[in-house]
Amino acid sequence: MNQIEIIRKKRDGLALTADELDYLISGYVSGTIPEYQISAFLMAVYFQGMTSAESAILTRLMRDSGIVLNHDTIPGFKTDKHSTGGVGDKVSLILAPLVASAGLYVPMISGRALGHTGGTLDKLEAIPGFQTQLPLDQISKQLEDLGVVLVGQTEDLTPADKKIYSLRDATATVNSIPLITASILSKKMAEGIDALVLDVKAGSGAIFETQDKAWELARTLVATATEFKLKTSAIVSGMEQPLGNAVGNWLETKEAIETLQGGGPSDLLDLTLLLCAEMLCLAGMSSDINAGISILRQKIDSGEAFSKFLEIVARQGGDVSVVEHPERYPRAKHERQIKSEADGVVKSIACREIGNISMALGAGRHAVEDKIDYTSGLVLQKKVGSAVKKGEALAVAYSDSDDKIAACHDRLRDAFVISDNSVSPPPLIHGKVDASGEQRWDVASKAFV
Amino acid sequence: MNQIEIIRKKRDGLALTADELDYLISGYVSGTIPEYQISAFLMAVYFQGMTSAESAILTRLMRDSGIVLNHDTIPGFKTDKHSTGGVGDKVSLILAPLVASAGLYVPMISGRALGHTGGTLDKLEAIPGFQTQLPLDQISKQLEDLGVVLVGQTEDLTPADKKIYSLRDATATVNSIPLITASILSKKMAEGIDALVLDVKAGSGAIFETQDKAWELARTLVATATEFKLKTSAIVSGMEQPLGNAVGNWLETKEAIETLQGGGPSDLLDLTLLLCAEMLCLAGMSSDINAGISILRQKIDSGEAFSKFLEIVARQGGDVSVVEHPERYPRAKHERQIKSEADGVVKSIACREIGNISMALGAGRHAVEDKIDYTSGLVLQKKVGSAVKKGEALAVAYSDSDDKIAACHDRLRDAFVISDNSVSPPPLIHGKVDASGEQRWDVASKAFV
Repeated sequence: MNQIEIIRKKRDGLALTADELDYLISGYVSGTIPEYQISAFLMAVYFQGMTSAESAILTRLMRDSGIVLNHDTIPGFKTDKHSTGGVGDKVSLILAPLVASAGLYVPMISGRALGHTGGTLDKLEAIPGFQTQLPLDQISKQLEDLGVVLVGQTEDLTPADKKIYSLRDATATVNSIPLITASILSKKMAEGIDALVLDVKAGSGAIFETQDKAWELARTLVATATEFKLKTSAIVSGMEQPLGNAVGNWLETKEAIETLQGGGPSDLLDLTLLLCAEMLCLAGMSSDINAGISILRQKIDSGEAFSKFLEIVARQGGDVSVVEHPERYPRAKHERQIKSEADGVVKSIACREIGNISMALGAGRHAVEDKIDYTSGLVLQKKVGSAVKKGEALAVAYSDSDDKIAACHDRLRDAFVISDNSVSPPPLIHGKVDASGEQRWDVASKAFV
Repeated sequence: MNQIEIIRKKRDGLALTADELDYLISGYVSGTIPEYQISAFLMAVYFQGMTSAESAILTRLMRDSGIVLNHDTIPGFKTDKHSTGGVGDKVSLILAPLVASAGLYVPMISGRALGHTGGTLDKLEAIPGFQTQLPLDQISKQLEDLGVVLVGQTEDLTPADKKIYSLRDATATVNSIPLITASILSKKMAEGIDALVLDVKAGSGAIFETQDKAWELARTLVATATEFKLKTSAIVSGMEQPLGNAVGNWLETKEAIETLQGGGPSDLLDLTLLLCAEMLCLAGMSSDINAGISILRQKIDSGEAFSKFLEIVARQGGDVSVVEHPERYPRAKHERQIKSEADGVVKSIACREIGNISMALGAGRHAVEDKIDYTSGLVLQKKVGSAVKKGEALAVAYSDSDDKIAACHDRLRDAFVISDNSVSPPPLIHGKVDASGEQRWDVASKAFV
């Protein structure tokens, strides 16, 4: 077999065999096939796509490039959630303890911030002492004991995905549906779960701006997962404005804590409850979304969800006192209100730009080795559809550097478009794809139809 | 500037600026941009193409990545020919001495065999002692003294093309019209020539199988060369069967010698005369093709063309006696006739397969460092349209290994398709593109119309 012929075949739009894909992936991981051939292959895939059979083969090869966890000794139902990434998306921090408090087992492996989107690990590490790198035996033990563990990727899991993901990031080949599918599903299946709920976002702050592309990704993810008999449901949600109000690591962790305690912004709560309810349905613990949501609200109201979060923090070495008393957390050195220059209604918020501004304030990374300032970021005071008066705050910016805030001031103000007319907020939920097909979300009845 | 953004821009089909292309190419040559990003870029160019302005910029950047020769002290007209590659194409060996004997100056820089096509340098080096690597001052001196020099690429000329060409070869991105254009024109312009004649081949043995693609390449080459004020004419010729009869290094050199002496196969002679006559027209030395061909025929008949070849061989250290007496050249250790199994007419000859068989007999390289056996190859006894009787030879195979001949026997026989019906030979010349537009070749009148 010859890798140039394999690249040519994909370039010409032909489907590759399992042997050909195996030759490429194992050759890349073992170092016999150079990066410059794999990157040309990835760009050919970007343009020519893959059949569903090819996507499934690539997923399997990437999953099996490392250890696949097995929690069969734990009798419960193991599940996880994956989001394609957005701005202000702190759902994982709420979802994991919430569904664990309802009796599901969540071996959640998350990533770090890169580019305009945040990373769950960085938000967790904003809690002093919180350890996200645990050895495999400790992961299993905590899962058994607490029902939930929140950790980062290890070298043992899906090494092929790690290599390919970095190469995609460096070669503008991230936005390819079959490559996204194989990357997400290989990692999640290596966690040893029984079911997976996906949050596929569409909008200016998401990997795909158009709903069409998001639906296509959702369909491909579900179809491929189904080939592996993994129960999967993909929610297609809107990312036209940040989720919740806080953007930036500690700011988001704090908002997640508020939500676990029964407060928090309604869009964040609604999406989290829906994703959690999908998990309960897949696990057979509730018959429909609304029944699931009732169970979950009760877990929040009773304090069980928040207690579960405290248990996680304590078990993973974090400082429980700052979770119990967020007001004790150090404040950012500098903060400034960004004020509206007109009366009106917020027509839109440039979502990706908000992510980039948060990064510029110190909350994100330009390169993997960059240090993060956990207190930096911003909190929206207005969302799309909010009425605003001239001089009223649109957002508050936080940073360890006043210069950074000054540099971001006009960008942040200009990210808000103010209109004279009334404006409806953009849809939070578009619909879902699961093994039984596709359904749209009906806002009035709060149900899939 | 950021190379990922540049790759993304090209991936999305946008035109790049001169600064962006310069950033990529100079970054690649200097080593600050890794190969895996350039190969992803090349694949994006394969799919999205380039505007004519981008092609011209890339050509200029690649030309100026090294030394550009200047022969202004030589008062004559400097010209060269480039073929996109075919099987049995030994035109350069005849063309260079022939037009030099007519008073043109030919600083010809050629390449080596790789894959199914041969290389001029290997054919020249079949002559014992012939040196193809000369220092730049010696190239200039020989050009001034003899009017012609036949050498290989040097490290000083177009280093960017060398790096990019190897990468394209390893990543299935060779067949991209803008990349081919920049590669050919940058190298030829670095020779310091006043005019260029291109032989763009179409057919099963050529880089593009369809005439449409060959015409597109011819148009792009001429349009781009015209932006540099380089007089250029591109002949579109057929490569549905090998050119001439001999395929393999010394076998082709011998056929070139026969042609320079007034013999040789008619297709080889006709195409060579046409390309040479185009050169005379571009140089203003003849008013039309037919006038040019008359001049050139006279140079062959008078023996001046062959004398010029002898001068080149002598000056570049080659053994003149084998050129004067080809029968003294060592014969291949083994030879065998491949016989027809049916009466009929040759309907087609699998052209690329003939090139691959010649390589398998020992005449070509699988890798750059492979040794070539100069006496290996094959000589066609029948061409498309030839009548053949059962048991009559279709071709003679030559090799230093009888096993190689045995292994190729059936492949070579099967490369000939024999038909019961009469068959016309495929067209040798399709037409031409030059600064004044496109013309088709009229076989009856032997003229462009």
